[in-house]
Parts: sequence; structure tokens; C-alpha cells
Amino acid sequence: MAAIDEEVQLLGSVGSPFVIRVQIALKLKGIEHKYVEEKLGNLSETLLKYNPVYRMVPVLVHNGNPISESRVIIEYIDEAWKQNPILPSDPYKRALDRFWSKFIDEKCTIAAWKSVFMPDEKEREKAREELFEALQFLENELKDKFFGGEEIGFVDIAALFIPLFQEVAEKQLFPGDKFPKLQKWSLDFYNHPVVKEVMPSKEQQFGYFKARAASLAAPSK
Amino acid sequence: MAAIDEEVQLLGSVGSPFVIRVQIALKLKGIEHKYVEEKLGNLSETLLKYNPVYRMVPVLVHNGNPISESRVIIEYIDEAWKQNPILPSDPYKRALDRFWSKFIDEKCTIAAWKSVFMPDEKEREKAREELFEALQFLENELKDKFFGGEEIGFVDIAALFIPLFQEVAEKQLFPGDKFPKLQKWSLDFYNHPVVKEVMPSKEQQFGYFKARAASLAAPSK
Repeated sequence: MAAIDEEVQLLGSVGSPFVIRVQIALKLKGIEHKYVEEKLGNLSETLLKYNPVYRMVPVLVHNGNPISESRVIIEYIDEAWKQNPILPSDPYKRALDRFWSKFIDEKCTIAAWKSVFMPDEKEREKAREELFEALQFLENELKDKFFGGEEIGFVDIAALFIPLFQEVAEKQLFPGDKFPKLQKWSLDFYNHPVVKEVMPSKEQQFGYFKARAASLAAPSK
Repeated sequence: MAAIDEEVQLLGSVGSPFVIRVQIALKLKGIEHKYVEEKLGNLSETLLKYNPVYRMVPVLVHNGNPISESRVIIEYIDEAWKQNPILPSDPYKRALDRFWSKFIDEKCTIAAWKSVFMPDEKEREKAREELFEALQFLENELKDKFFGGEEIGFVDIAALFIPLFQEVAEKQLFPGDKFPKLQKWSLDFYNHPVVKEVMPSKEQQFGYFKARAASLAAPSK
């Protein structure tokens, strides 16, 4: 619980998986905060002041100090509030958590979007091959109920987009029997009480997916 | 200094800026280690076993535990050996260090390569514009002798490619008067005793740059 003299604010957009990541981290820690909705395409002056580099949500503001980039924010939350650790304490296990969450952002997230939303079937197929190759690494990595063991941790939160696609988007990323461990994890993650509480409605998630899909399909400038 | 019963091994390729990053971190900490040279294009079975995901140097192996990705390795080194900290201890300052080192990899490094090595002048010019926009953020961020204050830290090590280009490659990234603080930092960084000791010869760096430039200029598969 944040102390009374602390001010924690989250600038987000409903349905953004990167914002949901931060919301899960805050909820796991039990940190009360003020949520401020930002409109994609019409960001506030405050957002642009706090994140002039990427001009994107999420931004966490703690006692006036802004932090951007979801993985950076989660590590900050884990270090600023010690209760209910998100990363393990052992340096080697921490390194693996950082490695796999970085891997998810670099090798899985974009390929996942493209495999579902690219208008051209050949491009979707190419993205799907890349994605399946990457997911196989994650499938092999999954040894317990969650990547973090019996509780969800940094890698689970990073891999959030998998259950979002599998359970919400009506366009599954992969057939359930192709990656059985990821499929089970996906359900367990989605049914975790903290995740359930934080997750926006299906309609809100659809709305975000649809807007992002439209921007991905548009010719790049 | 690593304890006698510890085994630290670095798999690298001479001239790789990402390997030099790790070498600087090890030297700052005073960690003795065995260096194993890997040939780009003909990587060893050991390398492929330790880094099946990216199949790239550097890989650090500590008591049999392999770690890949230079920024992940440096954070590991900083957490496994406590002397001479590379990241600050304050959570907010740590978050900023992570943010800017990530920014360097995402927004500066590739643009820097392209601005110098792309065969097409228009593509070089486009990359140069992107790079200058990114470097302006770093120029504004530089408030002391180093990004880390009076000593080099995580962001300085990440920004290594700037002095490599400015002082070694004979094709400067930017005119010295365009980013005066970065230009001064570049010289200070390059003349830091630990950096000086670790840096390979100009010939070795040229060799690496040349090989990378050739692969960048080749049509992508």
C-alpha cells in the first residue's frame, strides 16, 4: 500500500496490453493509484511532457517522477515497493527474467500482431512462422504453473498478449494442441484473481485491438 | 575480484561493441575471466548451446550459467558482484538508467550504423536525421562529466558506439560542434583508463566495422 504522502498516477489507454502490464504489477503490490485515461491519437500535454521521447502510454508518475516503457516501469515498481516481489532475488534468475521478457517484446509481440492482423495472407504466414519459432522457446521454458513458479512474475506479465489473443481476440494465435503448456498457462494466467480484476472488458479490448489493427494495416509513412 | 572457486568465461568477437560493453563492466568490477574468441559466421557449438535464441556474442558464463544480451549481462554483473556499482542504488535513478540504455539500443545504434554505412545517400540522410533527433535527447540528458556522474555507469557503457564512431571509424557520426556535450563526453569516455585498457586496437575495430558494414550493405534475405 502506498503511504498516504505518496502520489502514484498511471497514464494509460484502456485495452493497451502495455498498460495492463503495469496495472497488474500495481495490483500485485497493492499500490493505490490514480488512473488517467489518454486518447490514442490525441495525447494530453501532460503525457507529452512526461514522455517526450516515445510519446506513448503507459507512463507511471510517482511523487512527480515520470517513468516510461512498461518493462522499465515494472522493474521500478518492484524496487520501489518491496512487498510481493515480481522478480526473483537471485541475480541469475533475475537475468533470465530480463532476458525472456526482452525476448517476448522483440520476438513475439510484433510477430503476434502481424500473424493476426496483416491484410496480406503471405505476410501473416511469415509472421506466424516467426511467432511459432519464438513460442517454442517459451513452451520449453515453462516448467511450473507460471513462468514465475507458483505465482505470476515478470515473464508472465510480459507474456500477457498471449492470453489476450487466445482468449479474447477470437483469432487465436495458435491451435491449443500446438503449445499445450502455453495453452494451459494462458488459461491459468487469465483466471488469476489479480489479472481478472485488472483486465478490461472484452468490448474495451476489442476496441483497442481494432484501432491498432487499422493502424498496422495502413501504409507506413 | 572473482573468488577462486568461481569460473567466469566471456564468449566474444574482437571489435564487437556489445562485447566491449561487457568487457568494460567486468574490468570496472575487477572480475578475472577467461575470454573465448568466436568467429562471426562460424560460431562454435558451445556458443549455440549457450545462446540458441539469438546465436550471438556476447555470452557470459558464470559457474556454468550462461547469460546473453549485453544489457542483461551488465545488470547481472552489477548484481552478482557488489563492488564498484555500475547502476545507481536509487530505484528512480535505476529506472532512468534502464530507460536511456534501452533508448540507445532502440533509437541510436541502428540509426548510427545506417547513417554511416548504407550505400544509398538518401537512406544515409534519413538515418542521420533519426540519429540526430535521438542524440539531441542524450545531449540534453548529459549533466555531469559522464551520464553516471563523475564515474562511468550503465548509460555510458551502452552509449559506447558514439566514441567508437567519433574517434575510430574515420567517419564521424556528427560534427563536433553539433552536440558539444556528447563530443566532450566521447573524448572523456574514450580516455577513461578502464575503457582504454579494454578497447581493441584500431585495426581490430576497423575489421569488425568493415565486416558489419558489408553484411548491412548486402541485400537482406
